[in-house]
Amino acid sequence: MSENPDLTNERASGTFDTNAMAAVIYGSEKFAQRRREITEAISKIPEFQDSHPLVFMSREEKISEACRKLAVLSNYWNSLIDTSDEEEALHLYREVLGLEGHPLALHETMFIPSLIAQASDEQQEKWLGRAQRREIIGCYAQTEMGHGTNLRALETTATFDISTREFILNSPTITSLKWWPGALGKSANWSIVIANLIIKEHNYGPHPFMVQLRDEKSHEPLPGITVGDIGPKMAFNGADNGFLGFKNYRIPRENMLMRHSKVTSDGSYIKPPHAKIGYSSMVKVRSRMAMDQGLFLASALVIAVRYSAVRRQGYLEDKSREVKVLDYQTQQHRLFPSIARAYAFIFCGFETIRLYDQLLIDVQNGNTSGMADLHALTSGLKSVVTYQTGEGIEQARMACGGHGYSMASYISEYYGVAIAGCTYEGENMVMLLQLARYLVKSIEMIQNGKSRELGPMVAYLAEKESEIDLNLGPNEYLKVFEYAARNQTWRATEKFQKLRNSGMSNEKAWNQASVELTRASRLHTRLYIMSTFINHVGSIVDQKVKGVLIDLLNVHVTYEVMDIGIYVQGLLSSNQMDLIRNQLYVSLETIRPNAVSLVDSFQISDMQLRSVLGRRDGNVYENLFKWAKSSPLNKTDVLPSVTQYLKPMMDKSKL
Amino acid sequence: MSENPDLTNERASGTFDTNAMAAVIYGSEKFAQRRREITEAISKIPEFQDSHPLVFMSREEKISEACRKLAVLSNYWNSLIDTSDEEEALHLYREVLGLEGHPLALHETMFIPSLIAQASDEQQEKWLGRAQRREIIGCYAQTEMGHGTNLRALETTATFDISTREFILNSPTITSLKWWPGALGKSANWSIVIANLIIKEHNYGPHPFMVQLRDEKSHEPLPGITVGDIGPKMAFNGADNGFLGFKNYRIPRENMLMRHSKVTSDGSYIKPPHAKIGYSSMVKVRSRMAMDQGLFLASALVIAVRYSAVRRQGYLEDKSREVKVLDYQTQQHRLFPSIARAYAFIFCGFETIRLYDQLLIDVQNGNTSGMADLHALTSGLKSVVTYQTGEGIEQARMACGGHGYSMASYISEYYGVAIAGCTYEGENMVMLLQLARYLVKSIEMIQNGKSRELGPMVAYLAEKESEIDLNLGPNEYLKVFEYAARNQTWRATEKFQKLRNSGMSNEKAWNQASVELTRASRLHTRLYIMSTFINHVGSIVDQKVKGVLIDLLNVHVTYEVMDIGIYVQGLLSSNQMDLIRNQLYVSLETIRPNAVSLVDSFQISDMQLRSVLGRRDGNVYENLFKWAKSSPLNKTDVLPSVTQYLKPMMDKSKL
Repeated sequence: MSENPDLTNERASGTFDTNAMAAVIYGSEKFAQRRREITEAISKIPEFQDSHPLVFMSREEKISEACRKLAVLSNYWNSLIDTSDEEEALHLYREVLGLEGHPLALHETMFIPSLIAQASDEQQEKWLGRAQRREIIGCYAQTEMGHGTNLRALETTATFDISTREFILNSPTITSLKWWPGALGKSANWSIVIANLIIKEHNYGPHPFMVQLRDEKSHEPLPGITVGDIGPKMAFNGADNGFLGFKNYRIPRENMLMRHSKVTSDGSYIKPPHAKIGYSSMVKVRSRMAMDQGLFLASALVIAVRYSAVRRQGYLEDKSREVKVLDYQTQQHRLFPSIARAYAFIFCGFETIRLYDQLLIDVQNGNTSGMADLHALTSGLKSVVTYQTGEGIEQARMACGGHGYSMASYISEYYGVAIAGCTYEGENMVMLLQLARYLVKSIEMIQNGKSRELGPMVAYLAEKESEIDLNLGPNEYLKVFEYAARNQTWRATEKFQKLRNSGMSNEKAWNQASVELTRASRLHTRLYIMSTFINHVGSIVDQKVKGVLIDLLNVHVTYEVMDIGIYVQGLLSSNQMDLIRNQLYVSLETIRPNAVSLVDSFQISDMQLRSVLGRRDGNVYENLFKWAKSSPLNKTDVLPSVTQYLKPMMDKSKL
Repeated sequence: MSENPDLTNERASGTFDTNAMAAVIYGSEKFAQRRREITEAISKIPEFQDSHPLVFMSREEKISEACRKLAVLSNYWNSLIDTSDEEEALHLYREVLGLEGHPLALHETMFIPSLIAQASDEQQEKWLGRAQRREIIGCYAQTEMGHGTNLRALETTATFDISTREFILNSPTITSLKWWPGALGKSANWSIVIANLIIKEHNYGPHPFMVQLRDEKSHEPLPGITVGDIGPKMAFNGADNGFLGFKNYRIPRENMLMRHSKVTSDGSYIKPPHAKIGYSSMVKVRSRMAMDQGLFLASALVIAVRYSAVRRQGYLEDKSREVKVLDYQTQQHRLFPSIARAYAFIFCGFETIRLYDQLLIDVQNGNTSGMADLHALTSGLKSVVTYQTGEGIEQARMACGGHGYSMASYISEYYGVAIAGCTYEGENMVMLLQLARYLVKSIEMIQNGKSRELGPMVAYLAEKESEIDLNLGPNEYLKVFEYAARNQTWRATEKFQKLRNSGMSNEKAWNQASVELTRASRLHTRLYIMSTFINHVGSIVDQKVKGVLIDLLNVHVTYEVMDIGIYVQGLLSSNQMDLIRNQLYVSLETIRPNAVSLVDSFQISDMQLRSVLGRRDGNVYENLFKWAKSSPLNKTDVLPSVTQYLKPMMDKSKL
């Protein structure tokens, strides 16, 4: 079937080359090209297709389907991608396995990296190869049923038995059960387990241990191990997140991961050379999140924008044919600022990963000074990006009306997966308050006359406000954000200090100022996002691509400043606010002809998108009908529930 | 097992009687008492318990479980409730069937009421008794695959064949398939179908027809009928929403519902006496939505507030024990304004239903003047309440951290069900613009010197702003909202008028002003919600109950005004904004000791809540473990997916 002419027309109105834009989105022409090649190669391998739509499957079926594909993948791995390129592997996983999780996800992203980072050379000798060859499947068990973000409170113990030179693992309470680790429930047979190291009744705090969970032949849990799946979740139902309990479960001393801390056979504890080790993997995961979330948002927008160019409802001037819903200003206002954010998050992801890579080099050279900055930044970034992504995806879904609510749109699955990011890798409120600590310290430096020592990202906190001339472009909007973030950071800090100076404890004062502090963190983070967006666009060479990105940037800066209007009352006059508001509406119209091309540029294949509504060819309705007819309830015309319960009820009434 | 002492302590700190509060929430002591009695009676009937948790079931199992309970219910119906009392029936359904939908939902809420409203006396004679006795199961088919809110565009036709005196039903295109009606897919054997009435090639527009879909004996679809389930959805997966197509399907002339319009046997069309018939059922459904959504929000808050009083994480001053997360200001700020909104929505629901009942009396007396007012009001109310409810539920879920994401919390199911309200019964943006039309007309009346003819709900649009003295209490905050709504309504109207006067078509000008117009509608609606909250609290007699509701009202008015801060820049000084901000934080602390009692007062039983996290006794962790162990994936220690795919993959690697 040919392409829906409504989409053909949209594509014809685009002013730039989507391949050139894809090169910008994915960081290089080379990688954008590789993505297309991998997608093309995969499409030719029938075993990689979903057996039937994932949304029709039970959890057991989803997990089984994922395992089937993983087994197939292991045959094609080397022929499809450059296995040394993490991005290519991620793309392959996204295409074939999708986003609902799978039993090897933690093996690749946490188990192997942790072995590399935390196992000694001898330990790597023993386990790393086995893990990389997938002789064993591992996971990473840290979070407990009663303990998440606060690691100090973990309860699992690993007590050193000096007589046998073993650690005895125990879960002393119900709240100490490991809870949530991915692939732990049914798939993994080994795990890195974080437990309190106890030697001679002294608790040295949480340390990592390599623990075998299941027999390698029978896959049955070993004696002393309680393990299982934690049940269905809002999303990620293709993953077997698990629980894990220990009862006097013994492992050899050599199973404590000893790259950093060590326990000798006589029970002596040897401290790691410096304390902040392990910290950087957290920073790395959070750095990646901006990019991943940007792609989740992008996916939802691909679906919503394409569908909005096909869906017609109501009338404007022409009463003979209903209008594309994308022509309504309310629809554009729902979708286009989110397109801008998706681009912004992805660009911001690049920049943050660049900073991370730089940090790694610095740390190797013994310079850890940038660590706190980047840790604070990624904490805030993670919070703002996950929240705004969730918000944007839901607006995209609602913009699709009733069919958005059908699993045929698949948008709610994107929402479920993306919004989990508000909670995992550090709960958002806690993360915002971590950034706030850094901001308060920065203010204290200024108060103590040390403004010059401020890092580049917080230098603006010491600056005075300047006149704003909105005609001068995006950088003026940046100044508006600087004003807002600076003002709110000072306000929140002063509230905290005032409470503390009034005799309140530090903790109580902090708590009472905490809502104001989180606001400061959000504004600081949004300033960073806007600033990286502006810089990134500035660096682009292709003039057509740059032109449309400047239009998109105009949507972004005007929308974001309107959105934080309450924080800039002291700076902007009501005339200036009116000007920005009107500018936003003009920008929405300007971007309209490029809307479909802007989402096409993400080059997310139909296979990966898994959305009937978001199909590239726009043939939505025929395929929606086809999809529905093939759904499980339609295997039979008369359901057993009717025969068993409804019919007897109806028949009885007739007596 | 006894109650968790953390919750016992919370309950001891409450300052009022939760039964007295329940009487306020549910409108009368009598009904609050009846709710408790019905809940108590149900709890003694084992057949009403879920066979196992709904979240472990497939769609087939959910539908079957619902049918099982419906069959049981028909035996107990008369002994459990006063069947003439709609509220008692609703409570019974909520307890036993829950919120995921069931095959009789449309039969009760749309099919029977439509027969009553639209069938002639003879037609009622023929079908109403059968429907009420449940000899037949019906649904209501209006929406089509390509056509939702815009009824003018419906495509299904009912063409009168004068020779046989039959209507011939057809679905001329794929987009004309009926799509979404509840219970249509597999359960209903009859349906009211909305189709374009065509006589002698003249289209008289959409009319209702009574159509048999399935054989009453075999339950097989009749020839000419294509019917099935539309597939899985974001929620409501216990309902079989369906599709329906016709191919030259003939029904007798007498099957057009002829209480209002008629077609005689010679093919003459007789118009209804007045056109706005049928309008009021829409108003009624939307009136109910404020209350239903308030209860969805309440349910999520019961779960989140109780769990937050049990969950401990991090430390304040006391470092020996982690603190209840409910003691964090950020957590209170997430939850308490939503508690206030839940109360506000429920009170607002009462008031709107009262207005609706009054309208019915007026209309029967020939006075239809209030119809437009109430239609506009309920359009806006529906939009604001559904959106804020969704937002509040998601915040409640995230406030529960990781376990909120587990289906054990069940909050995401509440979200899925509640957020559907943004789309069904009129998409929110369209609804806001309907209200906006009414607001613009009101402004035009003022401009034409007819301010005195304005209804009471829009009279404030003609008033001048007055000085605000925040010390004078909630009514001053109301004035702030009046200022905001008035200002924005004038601004949006003037934008529309200016565009139109510049030579733009009416439609285009409206479209370009539409984002501003929706903002006016939201502010107007929020003003109405606040005003009914204030009035309702003012009418309460029990002084202890009134006291805590005044505290809650203080949370509400301060939070809401802060939330619309950008619209009141011209009115409030920055000192006044600071005052409100601080007042909000004080109000959060004031309400803290009553938080658990305020959610207890909703008296939503554990059976109805279906949440491990929200259990009344607070014994969360033991039950979470029990719940997980009983989930489907844990039926066996080694999944087939491991034996079939993962083990061979691991073993092959070892070679």
